[in-house]
Amino acid sequence: MALALAQARAAAARGEVPVGAVVLDSRGQVISSAGNRVEEWQDPSAHAEMLAMREAVRLGGGRRLADCTLVVTLEPCPMCAAAMAHFRLGRLVFGAYDSKGGAVEHGARLPHRPGALHRTEVVGGVCEREAAALLKDFFRTLRQTGAG
Amino acid sequence: MALALAQARAAAARGEVPVGAVVLDSRGQVISSAGNRVEEWQDPSAHAEMLAMREAVRLGGGRRLADCTLVVTLEPCPMCAAAMAHFRLGRLVFGAYDSKGGAVEHGARLPHRPGALHRTEVVGGVCEREAAALLKDFFRTLRQTGAG
Repeated sequence: MALALAQARAAAARGEVPVGAVVLDSRGQVISSAGNRVEEWQDPSAHAEMLAMREAVRLGGGRRLADCTLVVTLEPCPMCAAAMAHFRLGRLVFGAYDSKGGAVEHGARLPHRPGALHRTEVVGGVCEREAAALLKDFFRTLRQTGAG
Repeated sequence: MALALAQARAAAARGEVPVGAVVLDSRGQVISSAGNRVEEWQDPSAHAEMLAMREAVRLGGGRRLADCTLVVTLEPCPMCAAAMAHFRLGRLVFGAYDSKGGAVEHGARLPHRPGALHRTEVVGGVCEREAAALLKDFFRTLRQTGAG
């Protein structure tokens, strides 16, 4: 989670919503890491989780992440939560809960739906305060500068 | 939809699940089109809809598709349905309904959820038979060749 938080801070420094993600293999080694690139790439689908999972399968030579853990600073949105199933992700560890945009423990609760394509193990609230503080600070600064 | 079906057929010829997508601007002009590239790119997130929407914002110079229509041969999955909201897609027209994997008129019904990030207008069942037949034929052939 420390590396995911570092990616989130780096994203904030680029003017991106500060979310960072890391994919670990079954031994806990880092395969890939990414921060949001929505603004830089002008691509609304360039969320940290999508980029980290895509990079992990690219580097891993397979296209499934069944033995892997995705660590992300914020509860994934429905796009990323659904992508986790397409990638057959083994485990998700996330930081801050997102009652508005999250789709893991909130909203559509995709990994928990009956008939879900694939069940990813979920652990939420890891380093929650730190991850949430990053987002809060980012949006407060945005509001103060009038850019948000 | 004819162009989306052509993209789906081209995807089948490449050994991909035959789904094709097209993004049209407000005047009905084609901005982008794509077929599935999951197998070729070994990327489980390379669905036709994602590729067509990403390409449309790249070519359009903005990053929102509020005036645009996404035409796709199959009811989008939750990943693509959620991405539609991130792209602020104006309208979705799809072919075959997907009672198992779809998340527009089935499952999580993402565009219709209370508190959805963005509401995309939805028209389903356009050229439904032709789109469904393509998929049916593809999976029947897969089973017969023992590859599926």
